[in-house]
Amino acid sequence: MRTAPTANPGASLGSPAIDRLSLNQITAERASLKDAVEACARHSVPYIAVWRHKLAETGLDRAVRMVRDAGLSVSSVCRGGMFPASTRAEREARIEDNRRAVDEAAALGAEVLVLVCGAAPDKDIAAARRMVADGIAALAPYAGDRGVRLGVEPMHPAFAAERSCITTLREARCLAERFDSATVGLVADVYHIWWDPDLDDEIAHAAGRIVGFHVSDWLVPMQAVLMNRGMMGDGVIEVRRIREAVERAGYVGPIEVEIFNEAVWSMPLDVLLPLVKERYRACV
Amino acid sequence: MRTAPTANPGASLGSPAIDRLSLNQITAERASLKDAVEACARHSVPYIAVWRHKLAETGLDRAVRMVRDAGLSVSSVCRGGMFPASTRAEREARIEDNRRAVDEAAALGAEVLVLVCGAAPDKDIAAARRMVADGIAALAPYAGDRGVRLGVEPMHPAFAAERSCITTLREARCLAERFDSATVGLVADVYHIWWDPDLDDEIAHAAGRIVGFHVSDWLVPMQAVLMNRGMMGDGVIEVRRIREAVERAGYVGPIEVEIFNEAVWSMPLDVLLPLVKERYRACV
Repeated sequence: MRTAPTANPGASLGSPAIDRLSLNQITAERASLKDAVEACARHSVPYIAVWRHKLAETGLDRAVRMVRDAGLSVSSVCRGGMFPASTRAEREARIEDNRRAVDEAAALGAEVLVLVCGAAPDKDIAAARRMVADGIAALAPYAGDRGVRLGVEPMHPAFAAERSCITTLREARCLAERFDSATVGLVADVYHIWWDPDLDDEIAHAAGRIVGFHVSDWLVPMQAVLMNRGMMGDGVIEVRRIREAVERAGYVGPIEVEIFNEAVWSMPLDVLLPLVKERYRACV
Repeated sequence: MRTAPTANPGASLGSPAIDRLSLNQITAERASLKDAVEACARHSVPYIAVWRHKLAETGLDRAVRMVRDAGLSVSSVCRGGMFPASTRAEREARIEDNRRAVDEAAALGAEVLVLVCGAAPDKDIAAARRMVADGIAALAPYAGDRGVRLGVEPMHPAFAAERSCITTLREARCLAERFDSATVGLVADVYHIWWDPDLDDEIAHAAGRIVGFHVSDWLVPMQAVLMNRGMMGDGVIEVRRIREAVERAGYVGPIEVEIFNEAVWSMPLDVLLPLVKERYRACV
């Protein structure tokens, strides 16, 4: 991991305010929710994004109290979605599970439930895309009633076969636009979208629909794509340039640091969080 | 590797003619050019696509004779491109190397030089894209004079940081359209494009510009993305559906089987080539 991040080229508005910083819990995957929450409080990180597998370990009521007692806010719950399945019963079970995720987001006071939409159960990606649209249509009224926004996260095309058939900002926006913007938006994650030849135009077109912004970096040379994320400044993504474009499109909410990386996961939280803050200031 | 490939859904025109089949030499990476050429002849595979690192081992004149004596045609030479570099001198050296690749393609009677365009030398992907356009502009007259078409191959976005900043069919088409269609076209490789939400529309829009079609499959679960290709029928790509769309866009030239995969590379050629033909008939 480099300690001196490369300066971002071009005119810059400077660092984002620290009061927008969120620790996405996957960045501290080896820690419990309690440890992550306490570390955020200790290091004055105002937001945390909570993953459901950690929530299941902790229990919802206890998690709600922990977060409240630490004075944190929850930027999002990760994750809902995974709508496509080969049978109608399985698709309905997944929508039902998404309703539980909405309940959890509402209990935690999270504004957003991130949707990783799911991949085709077979070779038919067009059918999978229809199942995603149908799933969101079934879920949206329930989310709207509970004040939880659904954030469709387009994922890097390397995940198209296994995690999400929704791969580009444009596709996510067109999908979100089929629903009320108060309920369905999109989440822009630099790791998933940085390569897009239409990136600037698509961020601008998404104005009013962006409900989350995630940062990390794309390491070179790439190893396994799931774990290839690095700390901002360690890879090839123009994180600051993208953040400024997202701001110009009107998004001024929390900025989640979301890093799947074994080296990051091995860092003690009292080393990790200062590094996250340093790179947030220098590179985001 | 499955032995019984899944049937492709939907109405189908059936298999493509065997006289369009080309063995892309990377599929037989462990074999010499001589062994690959002789295996193609032995198994009545009419085309081969020749890689430059194999050509360098063999010598151009010897390669030309080998291919001619075996009665094969060369569908393409792989690969030119790699235009972006941090200095002007290095960019000019790369264009000069591309001229040598054009010479080799012309000597082999290959219609197409495949361009893997290259990645940014730093974080500035927009600048890299301009370097690619400038590189093709410098190369195109030389290629046109020698009757070699340049085939821009959009690569999967997983390769955007290391191999090609040109990632989608749309981007490759818009780039190709800046030049005479007699000289600059695009190469559609199912591995790189299968996930694209605009796939069908973009293949149709590319009518008249498609100069090559490559097949393989996307294996699940994905391991390292470079070596994740499988034999047609072993993964999630609707190869036949895409081939038919490419044909509707007017491309009826060679179909290259291009597979980076250790298991495939370990197969004896007299096992590999019959399997390639079987899967070509069943899945392409």
